[in-house]
Amino acid sequence: MGKSRSITGEKAMIAALRRRLPTADSFKFGIRVGIGDDGAILDPPRGHSIVVTTDFSLETIHFRREWHSPESVGHRCLARGLSDLAAMGANPLAAFLSLALPAELIKGNPSWRDRFLDGFLVLAKRFRIPLAGGDTAQSPSLAANKRTNGLALADIIAIGSVPPGRALLRSGAKPGDRIYVTGFLGGAAAELRQLEANLRKFRNCKSGPTENPNPHPHLFPEPRINVGEWLSKNRKATAAIDLTDGLSTDLNHICEESQLAATIDAAAIPVHPLAKKTDSSGPLQLALHGGEDYELLFTVSPNLRIPRIISGVPIAPIGTMRRHTARLPRILLIDEKSQKSALKPGGWEHYK
Amino acid sequence: MGKSRSITGEKAMIAALRRRLPTADSFKFGIRVGIGDDGAILDPPRGHSIVVTTDFSLETIHFRREWHSPESVGHRCLARGLSDLAAMGANPLAAFLSLALPAELIKGNPSWRDRFLDGFLVLAKRFRIPLAGGDTAQSPSLAANKRTNGLALADIIAIGSVPPGRALLRSGAKPGDRIYVTGFLGGAAAELRQLEANLRKFRNCKSGPTENPNPHPHLFPEPRINVGEWLSKNRKATAAIDLTDGLSTDLNHICEESQLAATIDAAAIPVHPLAKKTDSSGPLQLALHGGEDYELLFTVSPNLRIPRIISGVPIAPIGTMRRHTARLPRILLIDEKSQKSALKPGGWEHYK
Repeated sequence: MGKSRSITGEKAMIAALRRRLPTADSFKFGIRVGIGDDGAILDPPRGHSIVVTTDFSLETIHFRREWHSPESVGHRCLARGLSDLAAMGANPLAAFLSLALPAELIKGNPSWRDRFLDGFLVLAKRFRIPLAGGDTAQSPSLAANKRTNGLALADIIAIGSVPPGRALLRSGAKPGDRIYVTGFLGGAAAELRQLEANLRKFRNCKSGPTENPNPHPHLFPEPRINVGEWLSKNRKATAAIDLTDGLSTDLNHICEESQLAATIDAAAIPVHPLAKKTDSSGPLQLALHGGEDYELLFTVSPNLRIPRIISGVPIAPIGTMRRHTARLPRILLIDEKSQKSALKPGGWEHYK
Repeated sequence: MGKSRSITGEKAMIAALRRRLPTADSFKFGIRVGIGDDGAILDPPRGHSIVVTTDFSLETIHFRREWHSPESVGHRCLARGLSDLAAMGANPLAAFLSLALPAELIKGNPSWRDRFLDGFLVLAKRFRIPLAGGDTAQSPSLAANKRTNGLALADIIAIGSVPPGRALLRSGAKPGDRIYVTGFLGGAAAELRQLEANLRKFRNCKSGPTENPNPHPHLFPEPRINVGEWLSKNRKATAAIDLTDGLSTDLNHICEESQLAATIDAAAIPVHPLAKKTDSSGPLQLALHGGEDYELLFTVSPNLRIPRIISGVPIAPIGTMRRHTARLPRILLIDEKSQKSALKPGGWEHYK
């Protein structure tokens, strides 16, 4: 009861984390007390605001153990949090991980947990973000569930900092602003379909060096931290969001929060090569509704110039923000034949 | 897949939270962007350190829906986070809640979720801590589990601030320091036994006005925020921890982190009246090992005086820190007949 601090395996986990984590002073910001006290102490840059974001990674909802390698689950768990920081233009300070696992996943060498942490910590190291604390617990056991004694449940908390007034919000877009996206869209949905069709091929998939286009946009999405920081630092973007639910849904969020509408040019959307190979549904559909690409969508005043590449990531202008009127749909899509249609928030289906 | 932002009921939840939450400027610190953007922006007091803590509240591990009223689950969820801040001497800034529920718990008026949030927000309001964000998701459905389609899963993130160098750590105790505890011990374990024996009696239990001793130490534990802040502000405590796992286990944490040992006077331990009524096991056993009292244990230099009451909470001296030697056990318990015994970390049993 309330004993998550002393369950079997927790001391071992704390000890394992302490061993594996770099010392505090190898990071940008001092974490004076991390794993092992009642809380962690962070010293954000003086006068900066703090950005906080939390995201669940729940087995069967956000991943499947049969589908995703443990390294992919760990990477995706942290990437969800970092991508939110990127969308706010924040500089990552620290990550916290609440992790509940069934006993079977902490057995073996390496255990599922070890491989999960590998995936998590490889990404953390790349962005020099310390895992500063969290909670561990035994996953609720479900005797009636024959497949497993419990599910893997994670919650990632990502904390960043941003100079006062520099955070990128969803609500700041202005009529006439140009709409941009980073990288390529539809790749995550396309790779998920490949995964479904051939689980064995991806079973031991680990992340490789960062490339554009990302060869594993679903299994190892790349949070666009550097682009977000660049946009905030150079005061370029009026609004931003990360593409988790799909372009059609997330652009709708920007429209709603900014009380505007948008027109999108289908031919300008950078479709991921994996989506172009997909024939079961149109590549454009995957790029518009696929979701989980973790690319950034942002809006910029038409008076400002945006480079074609920021921090190695291609940037594409795809449309324009405009006032919302009864005459036109919230999001107007203009296709390659100049035909106009309404783009409804489509998003992506849950695992059934 | 990764669609926790757009699942059924989430928009309703965000809307419900926005309606129910006080506006930002009614709180001590401005939360400029909370629920509804990619992250929340907090402005901590200038130059202060940030304290971050996360705690799971998982059905069947930390609570049972048949045992705990939804208000109790919500209260206990937040209390776990606030108690960690109290143990660090931090001033609460904001709370974040990741909450995954099965569909059945968001139906009805009031739904289980509404009552959970009531319990959560009543406590939040008392400490003027805003619920600034979080995540929501559908709970993983477990078709094989007949009792339910899924379990209620929560993760609380509590963020506080503390002036530089003033945080209360577990590692700062010195030989000769006096050991103190707040309030009364063993009450939570005693009430849990009452609960087991008579579920119906507690089904609709809501929290009442704050009292000492707390009439519902298990269902509505009181985080000792004010005492923690007082200790930090007045530079009184050398180390502190909250009693989640039981005095015997948590004092052992202080001993280990401070590389010391301790001697405890059994007669000085403030046993909760509910524990005194328990006859199935000795009241002292509940006070020593019961856990979940969420009282503070802290150490103070023998040269400093500690009032008997801080912020309305009784304070009791119960022993002394000393150097660890091979001659004596890590924690020595002296009973009422001056008999000495080793106090081993006992803790409390999980739900089976």
